[in-house]
Formats: sequence, C-alpha cells, structure tokens
Amino acid sequence: MPLGEARISIVGLGLMGGSLSAALAGSCAALKGYDQDPATRARALETGWFDSIAVNLSEAIQDADLLILAVPVRSILEILERIGHDLPAPRSVMDLGSTKVRIAEAMEKLPEYVDALPAHPMCGREVSGIASADPQLYNGCRFVLCPLERTSPRTLNLAHEITTRLQAIPLEIAPGLHDSLTALTSHLPYLLASALVHTASQQGAGKPVWDLAASGFRDTSRVAAGSLPMMIDILLTNKAPVLEALEGSRAFLEQLADAVENQDALLLEALLDPPRQIRSGLFIHNQEGDTP
Amino acid sequence: MPLGEARISIVGLGLMGGSLSAALAGSCAALKGYDQDPATRARALETGWFDSIAVNLSEAIQDADLLILAVPVRSILEILERIGHDLPAPRSVMDLGSTKVRIAEAMEKLPEYVDALPAHPMCGREVSGIASADPQLYNGCRFVLCPLERTSPRTLNLAHEITTRLQAIPLEIAPGLHDSLTALTSHLPYLLASALVHTASQQGAGKPVWDLAASGFRDTSRVAAGSLPMMIDILLTNKAPVLEALEGSRAFLEQLADAVENQDALLLEALLDPPRQIRSGLFIHNQEGDTP
Repeated sequence: MPLGEARISIVGLGLMGGSLSAALAGSCAALKGYDQDPATRARALETGWFDSIAVNLSEAIQDADLLILAVPVRSILEILERIGHDLPAPRSVMDLGSTKVRIAEAMEKLPEYVDALPAHPMCGREVSGIASADPQLYNGCRFVLCPLERTSPRTLNLAHEITTRLQAIPLEIAPGLHDSLTALTSHLPYLLASALVHTASQQGAGKPVWDLAASGFRDTSRVAAGSLPMMIDILLTNKAPVLEALEGSRAFLEQLADAVENQDALLLEALLDPPRQIRSGLFIHNQEGDTP
Repeated sequence: MPLGEARISIVGLGLMGGSLSAALAGSCAALKGYDQDPATRARALETGWFDSIAVNLSEAIQDADLLILAVPVRSILEILERIGHDLPAPRSVMDLGSTKVRIAEAMEKLPEYVDALPAHPMCGREVSGIASADPQLYNGCRFVLCPLERTSPRTLNLAHEITTRLQAIPLEIAPGLHDSLTALTSHLPYLLASALVHTASQQGAGKPVWDLAASGFRDTSRVAAGSLPMMIDILLTNKAPVLEALEGSRAFLEQLADAVENQDALLLEALLDPPRQIRSGLFIHNQEGDTP
C-alpha cells in the first residue's frame, strides 16, 4: 500500500509522535491522532496536521491501515496485548519504542490477521511534548526497522516509504542486536550523564559548582534531562544489556581510579588513548554541535 | 600596568595559547610567542599575531612584563621551578593550567621579585593545536583567577584587563576550591566520556555499534577526544578530588544497577529524577548546541 493511500493513526503525540505527525501531514489518505492527555489532544487539534483527533484509544485504532505507537515501551506492550481483544485491530501496527525484544515478542502474539513491524528512530532531544514537535526531527537520523517473520512486504515497504518521507536512513537489524547496541549507544550515555549530574550536585552542594560548568559538562550531561517515564521503561525492558554495559563502565572507572591512586601516567595513557583515538574518528562527517 | 604598555610573552601556542595570542594581537606593547615544537613556531610566524617568535624558552621569558604559561600542568610546574635559576625571571607570571593547587604552591616558591597569578579559563574544544586557534575561543567563558597573598594589584588588574579584552567572565576563587569543583565539572565528565567510548567499543566490537550512535552518544562522549597529555597532567595533579568524584559516580552507578537488577521502577525514579530536574534547570540562558 502506497503511503498516499494509507489511513494512518498515531497514538502518542509527544516529541516523537508529534514530530512524525508534522512530517506526515498531507502525505497520506488520512491522519488521525490520539494522546491520553486531554491538553495534548486540544493542542493537536490546533496544529492543522491531523484530519481528526480521536477521543479514545479504540476510536484511534478503528479503521487504521497503519497504527503507529509512539508511547513509552511499557504502554506499547499494554496496547499490543489488548489489540483484537478489548481494542479493535488495525491492518498493520508499527511502534517507535526504544527497546525492541519485548515488543517483538508481544507482536508475535497478535492475532494472525494483524501485520506488525517493530521500529525505532534513533533521534530525540532533551525536550519533550507536542510543543517541541518538529517535522525535521527525523531528518538524517537512523530509523531502525526489525522485520519479523510475520511482517509482510506491504508493511515493510510502507515503513520504508515513511522513512523516505522523513529523510531518515533505514537500517534493518534483529531486535536482540538492536537492544544490545542501544544499551551501549543510548542507555549507558543516559546513565553516565545522570551519574555526572548526581555527583556534581551532591559533592558541589553549597559551592559555586555550576559557575565552573562549561561546554564539556554541558554536553556530557545533556541527556540526563531526558524524559523519565521513557527512560524507566527502557531500563526495565532491557535489563541484561543495560547491566552488562554498566558493569563494563564500572570496571573501567575502577581501573582509572587505581591508576590515579598510583599516579601511574603510563597506565592512564594506555587506558585513555584508545577511547580518545576511537572518538576522534567518529562523527567526522557530522559537525560537532549539529543536530541530530 | 595597562595592557597597552605591557610586553607579553606566551609560552605554549596550542589551542589555548594560540587563541589567546590571536585575541591579544595588537592590544599590547609587544607580543612574543614560543612553543617547543619547531613546526608550531614556524606556523606561528605566519599568523601575523606576534611581534616576535622566540627560539628558546629563555629568550621567550627575557624582558617580559607578563609571562603567560599555556602548556600542560606538569610543564608549567617544571618552568616555574627554573624561573630565576637557569631561566630568566619575568616581572609577572600567569598560567592557564587546568589544576591550581600544585601551581599555586610552585608560585609561592618563586623568587620574591617575581609577581604571580594562577589562572584557568574554563573553555576548550575537542580539537587542539595552533591550526585550531580562534580569537573568539574565550568569548563568554568563565576565566578563573586565583590571586595569592603575593599577587600584586598591578598583575591582578592586568589579568582583568585581559579577560575584558577576551570578553571572558572573571571569577576569583581559591585554588583548592577550583580544583575540587573542576574535578566535578571537567575531569569527571572526561573520565565518564572515556568510559562510555571504552565500553561501547569493547562490547560492540564486530557489530554495527556506531551506526546506532546518535546525538546522545555524540554529545556524552565528545570530551573523550580531548588532548591526552593535558588530561593526564590534570589527573596526576588533582588526585584526591578526582578520586572522590570517581567514587561518587561509581556508588551511584551501583545503586542504578541494583535498581535495574530488581526491576524497581520506584527506586529508578527516585535516583534519576533529581539529576533530571537539576540538569533541566542548567544552561537555560545558553542554547544547547552553542559554544561554549
């Protein structure tokens, strides 16, 4: 089904769902939106992006060729369990959740007549809500697709058409690989950034610590300001990879502490030069400071 | 002594010293530069910022009203030890080193006729070398000054005149407070960023891990690409505050790991919400993505 003929419903109109709606506005047969927050629904009505705003979840899913779930992971899991039971079934369902293994498992349990595709666009900002929605949010970002055995070419093709519309870069990988890699590239950065802010605020309490926080602190800590419900769902649905990533960091920080304790310049260099070299070679086509 | 009458010598023409030279060019009575690297000296000659480039350290210091040491901390300590002994003595000496306690101690041991002021501009980039020098580098950044009992008003006033010229924001604090706070705002971010790159590269080896590294990973890891000799000197000259900062982070990461292990959503929220709130309130007058 071409995008231009698809009736699309987007559930969850925060930064991700709102930005997706803004980007898809006018490109599909019908765009319906729904958010559980009445104020967000009211605001969505005023954007002009939607053909209709549903008053409840059931109405949002009704008649959808493609239902896109843009809510935190545990809410996605809850909705998937109810589809075809106390909720109607869309023709296809895709999600934008941040972890994929648990969602892929839940999609495998959908009624056979519901097509399904786990997905995850690798973008985000430290702001949230429909007020921050930006049709350019997905521009240039990786859009992970995790096709399952049950995913039809029809749904996969429609997803690719959407990534093209968003100017995103599709990447097809398995759910397990997605989750182990994003533990390293997304979940661990969040936890380390939070540890940084925690430590600076605790040990710097009552002192002019923020006066000395410059661009290094600003960038290293930025993601600690991200959406808490989203991050808690991620941590709860990606336990083993997150724990492994935390353990790797903890062991490295311990080695660093030993080297500092022993004033061992050679060991510090041996530990710190490989990450320096690796990081220097990354993002070289993507100017530092740019978004995304 | 007004800036316009001062003969200034800058030793170390990397990112910091080069940018300072570019910003001071034409504003003082004479600007002399020196770097131990012959290629940097040759490049400095071509910039047009200097009245002369010295051929050795002794020649650089000779006749200076103000000597500015813009080299890594341990090199600053070495030069301070030699001033008035096998090296000539400037009228005043100021440094831009990243830690201040050890340097303040070394300055207290200078011959009495040498005036001295420890300083530290809180800016930097993940690039280094004179090729990256930028007269705007110091614009808007905090410029820490740590006046000692022996620091004369003459030297302190000249330093303030320089910060004005650089459009930097002066902040006078004691060396010990500087070192304990920068351990939190600068040294810890570097170590956490290095731990992130280390862990992602080790655990992601042989997998498309960098394909999934988006803006969150990019920003959280940025400072890991910083100058290694500079960072090693910092870690070796700020041992106790760095160890305390590492210990605080390690303990917090362990609490997080326990909460993930036990799937404890309430504890995760209790741990992660305070840093989220604090970080959300920082840098609000300084657009994310801006420099510095």
